Amino acid sequence: MLRSAQRLADIAPFHVVELLTRARQLESEGRDIIHMEVGEPDFATPAPIVNAAVDALNRGKTLYTQALGLPELRQAISDFYRQRYGVAVPAARIAVTNGASGALNLAFACLADPGNEWLLADPGYPCNRHILRTYEGRPVAIPVGAQSNFQPTPAQVASAWNENTAGLLVASPANPTGTLLTLPEITALADVCRARAGHFLVDEIYHGLTYETDAPTACAAGDDIWVINSFSKYFQMTGWRLGWMVIPEAFVRDVEKLAQNLVLCPSTPAQYAALAAFQPETIAILEERRAEFRRRRDFLAPALEGIGLAVVARPEGAFYLYCDCSAVAADSFALARELLEEAGVAATPGLDFGTNAPEKYIRFAYTTGVDRLAEAVERLRRHFGR
Amino acid sequence: MLRSAQRLADIAPFHVVELLTRARQLESEGRDIIHMEVGEPDFATPAPIVNAAVDALNRGKTLYTQALGLPELRQAISDFYRQRYGVAVPAARIAVTNGASGALNLAFACLADPGNEWLLADPGYPCNRHILRTYEGRPVAIPVGAQSNFQPTPAQVASAWNENTAGLLVASPANPTGTLLTLPEITALADVCRARAGHFLVDEIYHGLTYETDAPTACAAGDDIWVINSFSKYFQMTGWRLGWMVIPEAFVRDVEKLAQNLVLCPSTPAQYAALAAFQPETIAILEERRAEFRRRRDFLAPALEGIGLAVVARPEGAFYLYCDCSAVAADSFALARELLEEAGVAATPGLDFGTNAPEKYIRFAYTTGVDRLAEAVERLRRHFGR
Repeated sequence: MLRSAQRLADIAPFHVVELLTRARQLESEGRDIIHMEVGEPDFATPAPIVNAAVDALNRGKTLYTQALGLPELRQAISDFYRQRYGVAVPAARIAVTNGASGALNLAFACLADPGNEWLLADPGYPCNRHILRTYEGRPVAIPVGAQSNFQPTPAQVASAWNENTAGLLVASPANPTGTLLTLPEITALADVCRARAGHFLVDEIYHGLTYETDAPTACAAGDDIWVINSFSKYFQMTGWRLGWMVIPEAFVRDVEKLAQNLVLCPSTPAQYAALAAFQPETIAILEERRAEFRRRRDFLAPALEGIGLAVVARPEGAFYLYCDCSAVAADSFALARELLEEAGVAATPGLDFGTNAPEKYIRFAYTTGVDRLAEAVERLRRHFGR
Repeated sequence: MLRSAQRLADIAPFHVVELLTRARQLESEGRDIIHMEVGEPDFATPAPIVNAAVDALNRGKTLYTQALGLPELRQAISDFYRQRYGVAVPAARIAVTNGASGALNLAFACLADPGNEWLLADPGYPCNRHILRTYEGRPVAIPVGAQSNFQPTPAQVASAWNENTAGLLVASPANPTGTLLTLPEITALADVCRARAGHFLVDEIYHGLTYETDAPTACAAGDDIWVINSFSKYFQMTGWRLGWMVIPEAFVRDVEKLAQNLVLCPSTPAQYAALAAFQPETIAILEERRAEFRRRRDFLAPALEGIGLAVVARPEGAFYLYCDCSAVAADSFALARELLEEAGVAATPGLDFGTNAPEKYIRFAYTTGVDRLAEAVERLRRHFGR
């Protein structure tokens, strides 16, 4: 008789979790599984960050902070924008959040009116549309493909916009494809939104993990853009659940009200830890690891191509390769199960990223060392008989 | 032109934050302010909990956990229900969350359909109705007063229920009053909800901080009741942002889907810390502190009564005294400003807890030592000329 809210019918679980559960079962039976499904760096948090947390804990820093975060951390993030990007972002516009997830929750809680439509790329990170749906906004998919480097174009956005459209969310680097937007591309998308009095949100959580050029921040394209970032990926603080958001000034007060009521404050130990994230010794560690990700990508992309898994998107950032598997399998979901069971390789089927021909695509994460990636490629080669 | 979602018009900031900002300003000018406005224990997290976090960090435990939390922590919470309450709550029904705030967010995201009404006590913790409103549910206030110990009665709930009502949320111990519900009272409220096919949620975040009798858990009144708890108050882990929720079995899968999409997982360091929360050496520390809270209450309640601030609710738990100030002031909000400016005592006006005669009431928290409470009482006595 009792039932969940209607929105639950539109919120999908991660299909990869089912595969992960099966992978753990196989491992408990003694099978060796190579994990290329996980969207998480395989490095523990760098020691200077951990040490800063331990130091803060030993000083009794366990009480609530301000709802938008420690003033000194908001200032450190502001300084980071100046130093790394040469962009002025005042600390007053920065909210520290429970990961990028927490940032997107606050953004859509602040902006999404019931029934209003928001444009999102498909394929894209599935949680984004589910978070939006939770606040009763309606996600509208813009199908993207290789012809636009898996990013929405201004023409697509303009064409998809109607009188119910409230805004646009893009990601650079994108997940699952790792593709970037240039600053002129970001500006062009922002202009489309501005001309329609719409909101523009840019997910930059993979910033820092780029291998050709540094990704430009949307903060450089206007102070009316919402920018979401995270300490999870480049700073390798996944489990700490800490991120941030740059908010257009007119909305800071409303986001603060929501943060006071919905979360109270972000994790205090995580915030003290993150104060060490921007120090030179930490950055040195992170840049070494970034070079390691690049080595992995440069090994894996041609190796997958060589066995019939075409890397369809230019993988300039993040730690994913999005492959067209239609030359070797009719359905990527069935393929993902088959590779797990028969080859001991776990990957994420397109189904987790939307409804735009998901059966053709499968995502491989290079979040494991080159030796294991080489073993995975060898297993795939044998499996496909190539 | 760009504006926030309509819900923001219904979400109030904390009025006490304005007072707190002014208090900090006065302190920066050298004034001594006694803080009785803060809903946070003044103790740092107990050493065994902190040490468990440090140990986990040194072992590299910084990656994501399962969305509903570490299995061993869910089991430890299940064991705690058996040991402390004699109630069987399977670990599979327990979700670890980003504080009680995170639990309530997941509960209402799971249950609140747009426009449906939910019954909440007024006065009550203001975030609860704002979280509900964020998920487009409509909070409906049940005015409660001294005649029912500031708790809703089954008759009130039955009378307020209509065809749009989806459920009831109560708190025991309550905030701002510290009053408890007995197990028969909880059962009677549950029966009213059951008879109407409604949801019943019980906020137990102040459990453990009771001074006459232990509060009964609503888990003992049926496995169809949602129970929210926290590591913040009794376990004194406020800044870690960790709590939990006991979920009726039929809804566990939907809450897990939401947790996967909205939060990914609760803080990993906090979860490892909390594994030490139930150990005997930790409980011994917590019970000493509980005795200290009792000493404070037993000092403060008669002292406030003696200067014309009538303690209107039987303060059996939490760390608040809710006082009727109408004998000394016409408006509690003006009184709170006046006490801060002129007496150097910060307290929370009734306005933060609802619209049920808030001008008559003011909340004093005993989250500071007896020496400071005595100084506060002396200042108030001088202020009122008593």
